[in-house]
Amino acid sequence: MEEAEKKDEKGIEEGLVPEQIVGAAQTNGQLCFVIKWKDKDDAEIMPAAVANEKFPELVIRFYEERIEWVSARKPAVPPS
Amino acid sequence: MEEAEKKDEKGIEEGLVPEQIVGAAQTNGQLCFVIKWKDKDDAEIMPAAVANEKFPELVIRFYEERIEWVSARKPAVPPS
Repeated sequence: MEEAEKKDEKGIEEGLVPEQIVGAAQTNGQLCFVIKWKDKDDAEIMPAAVANEKFPELVIRFYEERIEWVSARKPAVPPS
Repeated sequence: MEEAEKKDEKGIEEGLVPEQIVGAAQTNGQLCFVIKWKDKDDAEIMPAAVANEKFPELVIRFYEERIEWVSARKPAVPPS
């Protein structure tokens, strides 16, 4: 587990600066983000749990840019 | 503006502890969250910009619980 976590933080440990989260995916039930690093062409897949802690602003921006508003449900009680 | 921001942080300044974000709304083009405080019945509406900074974990949890996956778009190039 520790080994896996280390691997997940490869880019961070290399001192790379995250530029943007460009995608999300669910792998084996685990939410992951695709991180685009500054001045690097290749992206990295990282568990959301790691990104949430390391770059909360980027994660929040990713979600904000993708909000879709849905209509409120009809009232549970039918109109009389 | 400063006055408004102070007002937005009323609960925080009273030392209230945020329990959960229970809703989101768009007011005058500004994204807001509805914050439920611990041991308080009434909720408070707060600009997302304030909540993002003060309680990023709650904001991220709010989004994570509401993710809806959409199918990828069809490829732009039709299959040959």
